[in-house]
Amino acid sequence: MMLATMLYGAGDVRCEEVSEPKILHPTDAIIRLSASCICGSDLWPYRGLNDVSAPLAMGHEYCGIVEEVGGAVTSVRPGQFVVGSFCISDNTCPHCRFGFQSSCVQREFMTGAQAPLARVPLADGTLVATPELPPDDLIPSLLAASDVLGTGWYAADAARVHEGSTVVVVGDGAVGLMGVLAAKQMGARRIIAMSGHKTRQDLALEFGATDIVSERGEMGVAQVKDLTGNIGGDAVLECVGTKQSMTQAMQCARPGATIGFVGVPHGVEFDGQSLFFAQVGLMGGPAPVRRFLPHLMDLVLERKINPGKVFDLTLPLADAAEGYRAMDERRAIKTLLRV
Amino acid sequence: MMLATMLYGAGDVRCEEVSEPKILHPTDAIIRLSASCICGSDLWPYRGLNDVSAPLAMGHEYCGIVEEVGGAVTSVRPGQFVVGSFCISDNTCPHCRFGFQSSCVQREFMTGAQAPLARVPLADGTLVATPELPPDDLIPSLLAASDVLGTGWYAADAARVHEGSTVVVVGDGAVGLMGVLAAKQMGARRIIAMSGHKTRQDLALEFGATDIVSERGEMGVAQVKDLTGNIGGDAVLECVGTKQSMTQAMQCARPGATIGFVGVPHGVEFDGQSLFFAQVGLMGGPAPVRRFLPHLMDLVLERKINPGKVFDLTLPLADAAEGYRAMDERRAIKTLLRV
Repeated sequence: MMLATMLYGAGDVRCEEVSEPKILHPTDAIIRLSASCICGSDLWPYRGLNDVSAPLAMGHEYCGIVEEVGGAVTSVRPGQFVVGSFCISDNTCPHCRFGFQSSCVQREFMTGAQAPLARVPLADGTLVATPELPPDDLIPSLLAASDVLGTGWYAADAARVHEGSTVVVVGDGAVGLMGVLAAKQMGARRIIAMSGHKTRQDLALEFGATDIVSERGEMGVAQVKDLTGNIGGDAVLECVGTKQSMTQAMQCARPGATIGFVGVPHGVEFDGQSLFFAQVGLMGGPAPVRRFLPHLMDLVLERKINPGKVFDLTLPLADAAEGYRAMDERRAIKTLLRV
Repeated sequence: MMLATMLYGAGDVRCEEVSEPKILHPTDAIIRLSASCICGSDLWPYRGLNDVSAPLAMGHEYCGIVEEVGGAVTSVRPGQFVVGSFCISDNTCPHCRFGFQSSCVQREFMTGAQAPLARVPLADGTLVATPELPPDDLIPSLLAASDVLGTGWYAADAARVHEGSTVVVVGDGAVGLMGVLAAKQMGARRIIAMSGHKTRQDLALEFGATDIVSERGEMGVAQVKDLTGNIGGDAVLECVGTKQSMTQAMQCARPGATIGFVGVPHGVEFDGQSLFFAQVGLMGGPAPVRRFLPHLMDLVLERKINPGKVFDLTLPLADAAEGYRAMDERRAIKTLLRV
């Protein structure tokens, strides 16, 4: 038996004893997690915005040591340190080879990773091993690569950030902050982070933001226009998923810009004719983290980036409920769980 | 006085005597048109789908000899042959320099080009001159560059067609056919044209289509899936603008594909969450033809492309009403008007 986080309904998250995971398919691996964490997307069901009909085994971000592999697994072996994507993929189907592993024909979404042990399906296509065991202080940053960093990176990639871009980041949650870091790595010249919270503003600046806009809505848009000579952003990262945040993103985008949107849209609609005349592009979806994972792990191992700084609260797994509360109340940006 | 085409209301297009255009601003030019034509978008008001509150001077596609220029015009001079975009632009503002001249801060839409003479505002930013007078047989192809070819080209550019792409073209109007031609020039390996009309299918094949799908809707989508090993297109060109055609485009797009949409959307909406999980990108709008014009004119002058073939009906300007009827009833793909 082991301790794991289960969500029973809105606001009702519990740490309880469950069976340890077993190999179910020959393509599975069992991982002993080095650390786990709580995702902003875990807050949707926690807040009752998604239906919860049966208790959910929470957690989809993970890294750790391979404990056991199924008979068909060839690319990782017990004892190796691995990071995997929150999207399970075979990495061989046409969608994977097109770079969209998050739409793999065999796609599953990882679950049950807020626990000391987790089963990872399609281990060969999902996991990336490090050449050797990484030092402990890099664990938070490697864990971040599993989802939050990969998702922020995808937002910047989808928005086509490149050398010299002016980038606007809507959303100062962990993903938005990782979007700032990604834009910086991709050579953006100017990165405008929209955030009204001092600690998040500070982290955005540390990750590479050149400007902070603390207002939202029309006032915020006006400030972005002001900062960009009334032009708007070349690329906009929408990292929230609400109607309000998407409207803000649209209004901050210059004609010809693309919005990379990675917050699962809730109540968001686009009018075709408005999109046409605004001449703003859209590309979003669940991040194909697997595409970026080797590069992101290299950047962490070479200490070129420090995405682990996004964890501003660390708790033992047994206190996961407090971790959810802290993020829900925006007292914490992102909670790391010691497993 | 001269003859020009005026639209008085749905189905009511007349050729009548109007005053010849004059230079109104020092940045204007007056062009003596070598030929004019009717655009698919002219059919929206002709069919009563856009309100017509006052008679409209029709025609926005043009090429011809510069007759006169205003005092501030420096880049073209009387006697030169020029092609201009249907979007008037200064070609110097930030949006123009970003390649989106169709969102120029001084943007106007050309009017009054179904006539022997037309006034072109912002001549320096809008017109491109040929090195010498082109041979007569190239006039239809040069005229096509003004809008229909440039718009099909933008659809392919916005959809990110590149070497080796599998492209699906929704819409077998003149723009869709130009989209086929553009995809071919951009190196697409496979071009699936969706068309149920024999003459349009033949032209699509001549322009570079490798496959024809004659069904629409679900049956058509199933055929596209069949042809692509159940994957869909890497790039989809939506060249109609209706809800039905956009749905078809969405369903033909693989995850990670982008839809370039150039038909003005009428009754088209996108649900954010569907777009997110389909992981299909969108980029559309009025084509920034000016960006592509020098290249397109070169291709025509070097006889590498023959977009003028899209004109399958030629009428004298006085018979413009018949030209509208023929296109409305789909008896003609596109009508060239001798002015």
